Amino acid sequence: MVASRGVRHDSMRARNLAVVLGEIHRSGPHTRAALAELTGLTKTTVSSLVADLLEAGVVTERGAVRGGERGRPGVAVSLSGHRVVTLGLEINIDYLAACVVDLTRTVRLRRTRPADNRNSDPEHILHLLRDLAKETIAEAEADGLRVIGAALAVPGTVEGETLRSAPHLGWRDVRVGDLVDLPFAIDNEANLAALGELWFGARETDFLYVSGEIGIGAGLVVAGSLFRGTFGLAGELGHVVVVPDGPACRCGGRGCLEVYAGQDTLLGKLDSVSELVSRLESGDRRARETCERAGHALGVALTSAVHLLDPGMIVLGGVFAPVFPWLEGPVADGLGTRLAHMRGAPPALVVSGTGPDAAVLGAAGMIIQRIIAEPAEVLGLQ
Amino acid sequence: MVASRGVRHDSMRARNLAVVLGEIHRSGPHTRAALAELTGLTKTTVSSLVADLLEAGVVTERGAVRGGERGRPGVAVSLSGHRVVTLGLEINIDYLAACVVDLTRTVRLRRTRPADNRNSDPEHILHLLRDLAKETIAEAEADGLRVIGAALAVPGTVEGETLRSAPHLGWRDVRVGDLVDLPFAIDNEANLAALGELWFGARETDFLYVSGEIGIGAGLVVAGSLFRGTFGLAGELGHVVVVPDGPACRCGGRGCLEVYAGQDTLLGKLDSVSELVSRLESGDRRARETCERAGHALGVALTSAVHLLDPGMIVLGGVFAPVFPWLEGPVADGLGTRLAHMRGAPPALVVSGTGPDAAVLGAAGMIIQRIIAEPAEVLGLQ
Repeated sequence: MVASRGVRHDSMRARNLAVVLGEIHRSGPHTRAALAELTGLTKTTVSSLVADLLEAGVVTERGAVRGGERGRPGVAVSLSGHRVVTLGLEINIDYLAACVVDLTRTVRLRRTRPADNRNSDPEHILHLLRDLAKETIAEAEADGLRVIGAALAVPGTVEGETLRSAPHLGWRDVRVGDLVDLPFAIDNEANLAALGELWFGARETDFLYVSGEIGIGAGLVVAGSLFRGTFGLAGELGHVVVVPDGPACRCGGRGCLEVYAGQDTLLGKLDSVSELVSRLESGDRRARETCERAGHALGVALTSAVHLLDPGMIVLGGVFAPVFPWLEGPVADGLGTRLAHMRGAPPALVVSGTGPDAAVLGAAGMIIQRIIAEPAEVLGLQ
Repeated sequence: MVASRGVRHDSMRARNLAVVLGEIHRSGPHTRAALAELTGLTKTTVSSLVADLLEAGVVTERGAVRGGERGRPGVAVSLSGHRVVTLGLEINIDYLAACVVDLTRTVRLRRTRPADNRNSDPEHILHLLRDLAKETIAEAEADGLRVIGAALAVPGTVEGETLRSAPHLGWRDVRVGDLVDLPFAIDNEANLAALGELWFGARETDFLYVSGEIGIGAGLVVAGSLFRGTFGLAGELGHVVVVPDGPACRCGGRGCLEVYAGQDTLLGKLDSVSELVSRLESGDRRARETCERAGHALGVALTSAVHLLDPGMIVLGGVFAPVFPWLEGPVADGLGTRLAHMRGAPPALVVSGTGPDAAVLGAAGMIIQRIIAEPAEVLGLQ
């Protein structure tokens, strides 16, 4: 057999658990007979695997459906939303967030704590985040849920479990491994927000998610997978050059998109995004001009991004979502004029469906993906 | 078994042929016993598969080596360079090219015909190309080689076997399917040049290949695979915006890289790249200033490309290869200044190892990859 290559019994069983759970996730609910047919495994094997998955609380049995075998009805097995959940965490520049999501991608809990994390002490912030995580886990457990793993979204570059550089936090080389006593992962917020949009925003499988925060990042999803580049640093849209001899950017470059369209520039002296939105709604000229300039710059940077990345569509998220009505025109104009000859039509430009929760949802979703992909390893099944 | 899913005998055999040939290609030469151990197939199955591969001329037996089984020597099976070859073809703006490459990636034949293909009649050019292909195939056959398939590199966008748009040729929606009576593929020249650089330029598996021609394209290779984007249009480096209100570009945009660093701008009134190089060598001020401006623009566009694509290194090819000594400084300066804070060091900047043949070699190489990946289908083995 092609796939054998000296596979041991345990790892074969682990793979088969993943095959069965994957099939339930992708196209379930299914009867055991239908699962046997879909996976090519014997019915005895499927029954034994399903018993393990039931025991672990990742699947559940519900009512009779018409099964695969000669149309006889059978008991359908589907993903369970009642037991296994994952924890998403986020350190943003101006808040900490946590959420608990079950295997059916229903959000069970959401917690946000406003905070000013700029140039902050990592130890202090991680202490606050650890408290938030503990409280959220305790609350989930009180509801009878079992938290299997956690992931953290950070506004910076990540290597393993270390936050390499988060310029707006003022953090460099901060290890975050021991935050919770659970399987743990950490990733860039724009990457996780793109995955959050994919899994929770009812998106197609191909898009560029643009995360407008104090920094601007982007996550490219192609055929349902995140494109990460060679070192995991792809998608730094905020430092695409808009004007080569423009104002200096904190990155050492000049005229980067972030200088023209980052949250600090959008807000100017205003205190909050909601204040900006009310000014835009009331027709404040200054606010509208700022948005127009930002939209113009975003149109230039996204033109370069479309030429290089060839995304299926463009999704504006973060702070760009509430100001979308005022950004859309200038961005679409720029893309239309610059891209028309090369592409017929530029990619569709839409507003994010997940709002400010995209990254923290993506973090929880990433651990759900791991459970689906490697149930034996993550859940400790034999 | 996980991989079974109702696989029929024929398709199982086809897969196993691919597994065995793939192992020989990746890590051979191997004895049959070693192949059985590496693939998990029985020795009887391996022997029968190897017999088919020998018969088809894709592998060959050579001398005794120490095999996998208790160190006993056996006859090693390796890829054969003596029989099966593929044909690479290229339509460039100012030449047509063909090459024949064997399975060990040795170039057996190379033919180039200078031509002025700007705003040309597709039918006429394809007629010339068909003649060139026929002559090249005849020559290969006279040497006892068997041409298994062909691929064509074109300076434009491609969909299936149709050249959608090649602005410098002045072609639009040209079907190229019946060029040769062989399995056939067509792809963008920058994509194929990147693959040519990967397979024939002794490159690492991660780099951005920049194809400097009359148009400027790029092909990103990540972990040995070409990144194509959602619609296969990724890597259009030539239209990354360098100056948002710069001179109009033929694409409808303004201030694109191509305006500052395309071959037409580099040459100005000069007749050829070699004339440009001699002027640069003799210290001609105008030629040096042109190169410096081009290098500056290339540094800006590549900064945006590095932020978005995160390549392992940057390889300058096409016309940028002969003028590399004069481009390298300004490009590296731009990348260094703009990327230093974000990345520590910018990606290494190197000159292409394949020169002007990158695309036509990549075309031939693409068919070799198909033979390795699907020997049963491509070679018609049962």
